[in-house]
Amino acid sequence: MKIAIIGAGAMGSRFGYMLQEAGNNVFLVDTWKQHVEIINKDGLLVDDNDTLKTIKIPIFFPEEVNEIPDLIILFTKSMGLKPMLKSIEKIIGKNTQVLCLLNGLGHSDTIAEFVNKKNILMGVTLWTSELVAPGHIKLTGSGNVEIQSLDPNMEHAAEKICQIFNKASLNAIHSKNVILSIWKKACINGALNCTCTILNCNIEEFGQLKNSRNIITNIIQEFSEIANKQEVDLKVDEIISNVEQTYDPDEAGEHFPSMHQDLIQNHRLTEIDYINGYISKKGKEFNISTPYNDLLTMLIHSKEELLIKK
Amino acid sequence: MKIAIIGAGAMGSRFGYMLQEAGNNVFLVDTWKQHVEIINKDGLLVDDNDTLKTIKIPIFFPEEVNEIPDLIILFTKSMGLKPMLKSIEKIIGKNTQVLCLLNGLGHSDTIAEFVNKKNILMGVTLWTSELVAPGHIKLTGSGNVEIQSLDPNMEHAAEKICQIFNKASLNAIHSKNVILSIWKKACINGALNCTCTILNCNIEEFGQLKNSRNIITNIIQEFSEIANKQEVDLKVDEIISNVEQTYDPDEAGEHFPSMHQDLIQNHRLTEIDYINGYISKKGKEFNISTPYNDLLTMLIHSKEELLIKK
Repeated sequence: MKIAIIGAGAMGSRFGYMLQEAGNNVFLVDTWKQHVEIINKDGLLVDDNDTLKTIKIPIFFPEEVNEIPDLIILFTKSMGLKPMLKSIEKIIGKNTQVLCLLNGLGHSDTIAEFVNKKNILMGVTLWTSELVAPGHIKLTGSGNVEIQSLDPNMEHAAEKICQIFNKASLNAIHSKNVILSIWKKACINGALNCTCTILNCNIEEFGQLKNSRNIITNIIQEFSEIANKQEVDLKVDEIISNVEQTYDPDEAGEHFPSMHQDLIQNHRLTEIDYINGYISKKGKEFNISTPYNDLLTMLIHSKEELLIKK
Repeated sequence: MKIAIIGAGAMGSRFGYMLQEAGNNVFLVDTWKQHVEIINKDGLLVDDNDTLKTIKIPIFFPEEVNEIPDLIILFTKSMGLKPMLKSIEKIIGKNTQVLCLLNGLGHSDTIAEFVNKKNILMGVTLWTSELVAPGHIKLTGSGNVEIQSLDPNMEHAAEKICQIFNKASLNAIHSKNVILSIWKKACINGALNCTCTILNCNIEEFGQLKNSRNIITNIIQEFSEIANKQEVDLKVDEIISNVEQTYDPDEAGEHFPSMHQDLIQNHRLTEIDYINGYISKKGKEFNISTPYNDLLTMLIHSKEELLIKK
């Protein structure tokens, strides 16, 4: 299968590598000049569970691509999705399946501006990957990926992609309700990312605070109200329990959430508008009050203004 | 007039000094061992607008006092008020006037547990003072103090205290609505203290943020609703304008609010429960939703837990 990986960061490069190893015709697309040039010149350096390999894999800037693939896998940063889709619009064929594996909420609406809804698949993955340096990724642990076509008549397309993914050991599951899974992951992120970032603490420290239960409950309740309005049955108690499991230092406890890494450690813009900010935006649209997510979104944007030099 | 200053920090010492200089019989009460011992041994060192003076002034620990004064002026930290009133209860005579000059909300209820309501006066002051070191204060600028008896039949008591204060150049005003003035000051603090503390910025930087107007408006609206419930007419637009005037670097812009100094700079507990936390508490009592003040109070308490070593 001809597969384009759009957004070849840590996760995009992992999927590209695993899918190519399994015999697919893969190419990567990215905008990061140094990363693209190194992979073009020296190949992609993959530290695969402590075995180092150099992989030749085609990589292009968006403006260079011209081949229409069978499958496009979207792995950009949330705020990069729309401009990227604009740049690569010409390789979205009328039968090209487009699978979104970004974190966060609201991406299917953006994709639908460029892709016929029958060709859109949504997904969520528990694989991880680390970008060590430009052209160099480090893979540890295992994961899975859950996917589903937005159009119920296109189940065969999702099924086929699951087969391709499973040949590449990606542990694909053809989901019956991927939208719920996406909401669950976004809601867990929505409870932990912004709070640990604002409080400058790791997940375990957050969990030990007297008010952590109260804070996450309010955040999750607002997520649940917006989800329900979109016919997604996000259960508050279940998500609270999922969040609280991550406090364990044997789980994610010792980690700082990715938003903390982005903003506090690296002074980069965050994906807040696609997590808590999505709840805040939809709250205004639906006339549902979402003050916790409103305030947390504004506080994160304020921290961005204060920490990121223009 | 025999006057006890209860809480002899920067402001208490300033008032004690000025009132003693004007011929009153003043004594100070404080719990800070080093401060009390230095003033007892060497006197209070006052840098009065660049003139250094050493002032002999009586100072006691709470458990040592036994003289019933005509006037008690309360100048403790908010969280120290109740334990202090317990310790000095024996010197609150049946005609002792008790004037509260603490910042924040809710203090009159605490005082009423120890003092007959007819003897309680509430006040608010714009004087400032700096505690340079134990036993050493620095006075700059000018100010005023607005006072009023809680009991409308006790206007003569407030009038008399104003006269005593004015003889000491304290610029006293016998207020017609000191409760409104206290609420205004608390609300300005409520908009700036916690936000600058959470965002780790000064007042000018806060004012330049895209979301500062939106954030303070929500905070102030909740203050206004709780104030209205208590028959205090706190006008949202007026307070927004008061807050925004402080952004000017020629006003308070370059300063970090006192809560930032307490928590971020000195890792000390804050007065949040008597500012935003009071709104949050009363919201629950009155069944009025106050999510902005709820969340901000919880975030500040969380920062206290993270920053203050037990």
